[in-house]
Amino acid sequence: MSNKEIPYKVYLSEDEIPKEWYNVRADMKNKPAPLIHPGTHKPLSVEEMEPIFCRELCEQELDNDTRLIPIPKEIQDFYKMYRPSPLVRAYCLEKKLDTPAHIYYKFEGNNTSGSHKLNSAIAQAYYAKNQGLKGVTTETGAGQWGTALSMACSYFDIDCKVYMVKVSYEQKPFRREVMRTYGADVTPSPSDTTNVGRQILKEFPGTTGSLGCAISEAVEAATSTEGYRYVLGSVLNQVLLHQSVIGVEAKKAFEKIGVKPDVIIGCAGGGSNLGGLISPFMGEKLRGEADYRIIAVEPASCPSLTRGKFVYDFCDTGHVTPLAKMYTLGSEFIPSANHAGGLRYHGMSPILSQLYHDGYMEARTAEQTSVFEAAEEFARVEGILPAPESSHAIRAAIDEALKCKETGEEKNILFGLTGTGYFDLVAYQKYNDGEMSDYIPTDEDLEAGFAKIPDTGDVQF
Amino acid sequence: MSNKEIPYKVYLSEDEIPKEWYNVRADMKNKPAPLIHPGTHKPLSVEEMEPIFCRELCEQELDNDTRLIPIPKEIQDFYKMYRPSPLVRAYCLEKKLDTPAHIYYKFEGNNTSGSHKLNSAIAQAYYAKNQGLKGVTTETGAGQWGTALSMACSYFDIDCKVYMVKVSYEQKPFRREVMRTYGADVTPSPSDTTNVGRQILKEFPGTTGSLGCAISEAVEAATSTEGYRYVLGSVLNQVLLHQSVIGVEAKKAFEKIGVKPDVIIGCAGGGSNLGGLISPFMGEKLRGEADYRIIAVEPASCPSLTRGKFVYDFCDTGHVTPLAKMYTLGSEFIPSANHAGGLRYHGMSPILSQLYHDGYMEARTAEQTSVFEAAEEFARVEGILPAPESSHAIRAAIDEALKCKETGEEKNILFGLTGTGYFDLVAYQKYNDGEMSDYIPTDEDLEAGFAKIPDTGDVQF
Repeated sequence: MSNKEIPYKVYLSEDEIPKEWYNVRADMKNKPAPLIHPGTHKPLSVEEMEPIFCRELCEQELDNDTRLIPIPKEIQDFYKMYRPSPLVRAYCLEKKLDTPAHIYYKFEGNNTSGSHKLNSAIAQAYYAKNQGLKGVTTETGAGQWGTALSMACSYFDIDCKVYMVKVSYEQKPFRREVMRTYGADVTPSPSDTTNVGRQILKEFPGTTGSLGCAISEAVEAATSTEGYRYVLGSVLNQVLLHQSVIGVEAKKAFEKIGVKPDVIIGCAGGGSNLGGLISPFMGEKLRGEADYRIIAVEPASCPSLTRGKFVYDFCDTGHVTPLAKMYTLGSEFIPSANHAGGLRYHGMSPILSQLYHDGYMEARTAEQTSVFEAAEEFARVEGILPAPESSHAIRAAIDEALKCKETGEEKNILFGLTGTGYFDLVAYQKYNDGEMSDYIPTDEDLEAGFAKIPDTGDVQF
Repeated sequence: MSNKEIPYKVYLSEDEIPKEWYNVRADMKNKPAPLIHPGTHKPLSVEEMEPIFCRELCEQELDNDTRLIPIPKEIQDFYKMYRPSPLVRAYCLEKKLDTPAHIYYKFEGNNTSGSHKLNSAIAQAYYAKNQGLKGVTTETGAGQWGTALSMACSYFDIDCKVYMVKVSYEQKPFRREVMRTYGADVTPSPSDTTNVGRQILKEFPGTTGSLGCAISEAVEAATSTEGYRYVLGSVLNQVLLHQSVIGVEAKKAFEKIGVKPDVIIGCAGGGSNLGGLISPFMGEKLRGEADYRIIAVEPASCPSLTRGKFVYDFCDTGHVTPLAKMYTLGSEFIPSANHAGGLRYHGMSPILSQLYHDGYMEARTAEQTSVFEAAEEFARVEGILPAPESSHAIRAAIDEALKCKETGEEKNILFGLTGTGYFDLVAYQKYNDGEMSDYIPTDEDLEAGFAKIPDTGDVQF
């Protein structure tokens, strides 16, 4: 297809929606390190994980070998409600930047949860239903994951109990209301409904909560209630597996128009979107069949890949979870107030951590105001108001396109537009009012975070 | 195409996006009555309208004869950013209702303005730009129209001045912020920036404003500023013309799957969405080529078609606009607080009014809580959180589908899903908390509205 024939939006047909998830671990020579028990430092078995997670999801978590995993028919049907998502050629942004680069984005925001999170939420809700469970628990910060899970549980008619970081619960009443509309039970965290919550409230009476604390409460609620399990929206291998639907679709759409991306860019918090977007491209790269530049963009305020350590650490601040080997800032690192709530996580997906460690991808940071500058530039010409998280990728895509302008290169740039910013307008307001801060953690801030990383010695598998 | 082969979402290809708007007036035997001057009662000429509206739009307003009007290339390009919109088969809703009916909806909410309003906003902004104007003014209540116009003006790089009803300005800061992000100048109305605003503030110091007052300010701001014109998001013939893109696409999508709708349903405030959705179907009906049941659904709190009078009336409460012949509750009728802000208009599009008067369509009302009940039922299975306005159509579609369940009829039901409810969560919250009211105006309330309808005698054209 000649360049001028490429449509604004490349849609796959409904029967081209992937019927299999792609498991990038199958093509990794160095597999991601297993989750280990914090006491014994032994890798967790399916049996040990089962009290926390749904059975099938434990299998998926540990499966480093199966390349293609069939998507159950019920999940395929749900995907048809909002997928395939469009691969968009950003003609207007290219024109505005006056760049010879061709910019594409895979837009995952066209559903009520407003983001890609629904891709994994529906899978996790399905496996819970299929196992005969009554319901699931989870935590949510910014609220995208909680919203997605509420929608998914409502569809499969199982209970959904969300622990929402108290400050978000109070400042984002609309997110909370969407979850309620989908029938979820939303509790501000810390709460007096769990031991860990009561303990924290006693120690820090005025606390407005944190993601780590909400995780601890959600895990306790799941493991202490008959018929419940805990589910998580990022970081885990299973989540990246489900999110591969993004990348598989994107790759197929590129093949349809006869284009190969040169650079692939995604924002990185826990890694769910980036891991999903890049997976089949990374597979080709790992198998030596193609080369792509792959760039993770993280907030300068929470730079796990670029300034973290590649070690075993807790996934939560309450230290009730297993240890994961990942790039981490320490489970007690507290990022400065940043409006990309979905990127304020101290760690990074073990899969992405390993790939980064092995040199298969780059990472860079972006400062908050420059992210919102990119967001607004994008919104004004491309019509979509992007989520602050996604706008990290926009920032890098614009920067790469401007480099092409200098060099005259016609590169094909792909970035992941994970979601919309309808519930982030307080952040846009701060930006428009010139009141947005750009705090970057000092080396001392990082040392404080690193101080509590557990000593796992030289545990190797 | 056999029933089971119909996909969840029927998308046209990009080159099937309409290249012409369809002007239903060309097929009407009884044309809509012309706008008249409130003093002389004479029909307005293009020359008389030009100080208020862009030239080309005046031509379109008065053109009762040209059936197909070419869509300029620049507008076609913008349409490609968010169109074609999907025609969705509501499989999950059908299953939930256990109905033999086939339910389809044309979804116009997949753009940042959140509604169909963008279809006309971009056209009006284009004609303003093309005429060499500096900018446009408008009013907005709920904010969908203001947001759409801000996006359109930003794209064509012209000024956008929005008078936003003060109570909305204060209660919907996020809508306001989206407009600002798109570079619009948003003023709470009434303001001290216009004579009419100052006059109203002097008379009613504590007023929180009204749509009628905001219209008056916007018109004054346009006519008193060099290089500006006023634009409007509904009611006018030109707006219905631009919105025909919805119906033309829907009809083409139905032809693609070999289905003919039996019943077509749309919510009706000023008529922009309903008029656009039904236009090509209505054309066939007017030409005697096909028959469709067409149903307008209005809020029980603002029942212009079902309880209004078909007479000449002002389009605004400040009485600075021409008179339009329409079903009206009187320009000073104040609907009770209803969360479907986009449907709180005292009048109705002259085109739709004439068609209703001539028996080509039905109208019914829906009470607010039953509308939100339908909204929530829809959201939980179809995944989209609908706008309160659109949910009036959902209510009627569900009711029709349930009738089919009783009779066993396999009717094809089409409704217009005009937009999303991300900025209407205060309303959802009220509904979820059981605090939503269902006030229906009494006959006395209506009499008060009718009291100030101007006496135009038996003016006929």
